[in-house]
Amino acid sequence: MARINEHYLKLKAGYLFPEIARRVKAFADANPSAKIIRLGIGDVTEPLPPAIVEAMHKAVDEMARRESFRGYGPEQGYDFLRTAIAENDFKARGCDIAADEIFVSDGSKCDTGNILDIFGIDNRVAVQDPVYPVYVDTNVMFGRTGPADGSGRYSGLVYLPCTAANRFTPELPTEKVDLIYLCSPNNPTGTALTKDALARWVSFARQNDAILFFDAAYEAYIADSSLPHSIYEIPGARDVAIEFRSFSKNAGFTGTRCAFTVVPKSLTGATADRERRDIHSLWNRRHTTKFNGVSYPVQVAAAAVYSPEGKKETRGLVDFYLANAKLLREGIDRAGIEVFGGVNAPYIWLKTPGGLSSWDFFDRLLSKAHLVGTPGSGFGSCGEGYFRLSAFNSRANIEEAIERFRRILE
Amino acid sequence: MARINEHYLKLKAGYLFPEIARRVKAFADANPSAKIIRLGIGDVTEPLPPAIVEAMHKAVDEMARRESFRGYGPEQGYDFLRTAIAENDFKARGCDIAADEIFVSDGSKCDTGNILDIFGIDNRVAVQDPVYPVYVDTNVMFGRTGPADGSGRYSGLVYLPCTAANRFTPELPTEKVDLIYLCSPNNPTGTALTKDALARWVSFARQNDAILFFDAAYEAYIADSSLPHSIYEIPGARDVAIEFRSFSKNAGFTGTRCAFTVVPKSLTGATADRERRDIHSLWNRRHTTKFNGVSYPVQVAAAAVYSPEGKKETRGLVDFYLANAKLLREGIDRAGIEVFGGVNAPYIWLKTPGGLSSWDFFDRLLSKAHLVGTPGSGFGSCGEGYFRLSAFNSRANIEEAIERFRRILE
Repeated sequence: MARINEHYLKLKAGYLFPEIARRVKAFADANPSAKIIRLGIGDVTEPLPPAIVEAMHKAVDEMARRESFRGYGPEQGYDFLRTAIAENDFKARGCDIAADEIFVSDGSKCDTGNILDIFGIDNRVAVQDPVYPVYVDTNVMFGRTGPADGSGRYSGLVYLPCTAANRFTPELPTEKVDLIYLCSPNNPTGTALTKDALARWVSFARQNDAILFFDAAYEAYIADSSLPHSIYEIPGARDVAIEFRSFSKNAGFTGTRCAFTVVPKSLTGATADRERRDIHSLWNRRHTTKFNGVSYPVQVAAAAVYSPEGKKETRGLVDFYLANAKLLREGIDRAGIEVFGGVNAPYIWLKTPGGLSSWDFFDRLLSKAHLVGTPGSGFGSCGEGYFRLSAFNSRANIEEAIERFRRILE
Repeated sequence: MARINEHYLKLKAGYLFPEIARRVKAFADANPSAKIIRLGIGDVTEPLPPAIVEAMHKAVDEMARRESFRGYGPEQGYDFLRTAIAENDFKARGCDIAADEIFVSDGSKCDTGNILDIFGIDNRVAVQDPVYPVYVDTNVMFGRTGPADGSGRYSGLVYLPCTAANRFTPELPTEKVDLIYLCSPNNPTGTALTKDALARWVSFARQNDAILFFDAAYEAYIADSSLPHSIYEIPGARDVAIEFRSFSKNAGFTGTRCAFTVVPKSLTGATADRERRDIHSLWNRRHTTKFNGVSYPVQVAAAAVYSPEGKKETRGLVDFYLANAKLLREGIDRAGIEVFGGVNAPYIWLKTPGGLSSWDFFDRLLSKAHLVGTPGSGFGSCGEGYFRLSAFNSRANIEEAIERFRRILE
């Protein structure tokens, strides 16, 4: 009798975004003339920059000629891309990361889920609350949790509250944890962790033989020059941290698909007999056995992000969305709503007015202003009473959204 | 203490192909003037067909303009591609498969590994021997086996011998199994299962509440019109089979990356309490949570495979490799070696001459003829004494390889 993985049955019915899509569709069907502005999902809206488009065309042409055609590439990514990443994202910032510690993939969502494959079932996992739902759901699927309680928290996971009271910076856990997800700049709160905060986590991981999963998908949005872009800017992090990066949000690759994960060779985990094993070898085995590399034209496009033109153009993209975030933040602040994030991140995190629940505010914003955001409670129980807005949109839509906010709140 | 997944430590050191690469490199370094011909890995050599290149360029241009730019797409794939697949690969053959039963992915290797996520640990798994190593290794990683014995067989798996004695067609198991991998046309033996053979497996699965994982990555190479291309050509298969397909071998996508998996909505598995649950929902949850869709230009390129020009051009590619296979098969037969496959598949499976072991023949072929193939024993203990050659190469290289074979064997 073929048996299913019953851990999947513990997952709550709707992944957050399908539920949003359902409510928006119901509203749009009932109100066909409403001009809905979507500030929900963190999906880019601006086209791929010219340097990237040009590189991708060239690579497609290479695929059209026998002498330059590429079949299977190295599963870990082509050297030209791994080297460009190591030089520009790490060595240029003083981080000691080599090209062969970088694993190119088709997405950070995939990588943050897949990384669990190489760790034992008996690790204790900590996540921030609110949290990017994929971290939690993939642990549930893996069987590392019990069922969810009424607030949506799963037994077996350690939740690290992030609220206005602690400036959305998680405290160190008081109980034993082995694997810790940190996301900075944070999705959903828009908070970037300081060097001191990260240093405390690195120190904690070193003392407790824990491993940090550091998701830096939004690092390009850091505007404050004192903030670290990589966990490896913290001394000692090479021995305790895996970092996830993506081209989705800096270069607009959400539909083009390229990301990478850094696994330093000095990072180790333990066997039951307390032998040390290097994580790099395990991840390499996982990656080469269960993945076949990223499309060649896509890797060439990603490498163009590091060309002089590519750097200028992706900087322009990020600055455009950051200016959106600033407008949104200031506009919402003027409307009398308490607002966070939006300075070093493309996300605005606001306190719902009048003590409304996150979903009530969602429904009100949709019905009164035809605006779509993301209910904070969808990211965890500490997100209740908060709401996320994304700055990924056209300038005209951002300005229109601010005006609608003003109208419904004043 | 962060603990590793110790099941990985049961894996034998080298995945087959890295070991081949190591020996070839050692030989090439010692013999820099040797002109090595590689017939080892099943990687295509001919460029992408013009219709596909043109479609991909158009899609890249769409990504360059705001009004046609695509961000996140549906994780399961765009409707235009899923519909083209359902119409051309299934409905045209009388298979009752709908577009929403097709999940577009970046590779069949990934899918055949990832599918295990949604099944419980306590399923008993059967594989053909010889076998595509990924099926075995991903089960080992998942923890479904004990250690390997001296012949490389893992305890806990059921091996179905495929040798010349049974014409490389596996017999039904005499013990209980729940999940069964079938690959037809077969990698590595080049054997395509008949309609009768497949019907026996469908009947077995229905009677034993088992699920078939049917890998049809090489279906385009079926030349004999009586042979089924899809498991769904067998009545009743919708209730018991998942099918894996790929654009790698028909359209030359090994470096471009696109594949798909068919999960019929009528397929179910059981809980411990013997409740039935549909597998489609579980796979959909896995796919949307741990995957973010295939690159948009790649999906457009894949859809062009089904255009009139695309069909003609990919047919031309397949016919070219099939003609290579015929030449190789006939040339090796003339050299007095017993040869199988190569008629409905791009692989030649030969009996090593003089009772040589697979690896001894590998070393001899490399050192004497500067030819690289794949030792049959690398695919399982029943592959010992066999050897695989791939027909994926230029015509000139195939002809030269045949001539070298003749010289070392006559």
